Amino acid sequence: MFQWAEHVDDEHVGKVRDALDDLPEHIGQIRSYVHGFDVGVSEGNFDYVVVADFDTVADWRTYRDHPSHVLFVEELIKGHVANRAAIQYQTPAHRSPQDYSTAGIQELLAQVDELG
Amino acid sequence: MFQWAEHVDDEHVGKVRDALDDLPEHIGQIRSYVHGFDVGVSEGNFDYVVVADFDTVADWRTYRDHPSHVLFVEELIKGHVANRAAIQYQTPAHRSPQDYSTAGIQELLAQVDELG
Repeated sequence: MFQWAEHVDDEHVGKVRDALDDLPEHIGQIRSYVHGFDVGVSEGNFDYVVVADFDTVADWRTYRDHPSHVLFVEELIKGHVANRAAIQYQTPAHRSPQDYSTAGIQELLAQVDELG
Repeated sequence: MFQWAEHVDDEHVGKVRDALDDLPEHIGQIRSYVHGFDVGVSEGNFDYVVVADFDTVADWRTYRDHPSHVLFVEELIKGHVANRAAIQYQTPAHRSPQDYSTAGIQELLAQVDELG
């Protein structure tokens, strides 16, 4: 999660959104990538969030150090945020990241197609 | 996301985890509920995270004000956290919360079963 610095305007946030939309095309290790701005229903919230799913810690490290991600951080994040909150967490076994991934859904849809 | 106060030990975190595991049984508006502790691969992280999906802002408000959730906050969060970071965000149309929910997966699995 990020809280923007004071100078950050809607145009900059639009660039962040577009850049984040593009990242999964460049980084194959991303299983699911959901991001968005705070919708304004609570006081004291952060401004923007990215929720990214990976199969392994190694895949997350590849993403973190990937040139496309590093460039995104350098160009659109560094110097533009007042506050950052981050965590890496493991989803429970009965809710593996794959269950929520596009790949997981597409696998299930493919099974439906095959059987139909 | 929470950063625990200094007095919080593993036993307390275990109680938080168990209470969060129970909440979806009590609050029907929850579509997906993923939570977990920081796995310790980055410096400066928060300690615990909850990612909850709802169909509507109204459903989120019902959850927020639900007696089971309020009791959880009163008993296990208030007075036990040094820092909190929160955001409410809308997932993109092509990735609706339902796509990642247990209900969504089960619907797809039911289709597979029916066809098989």
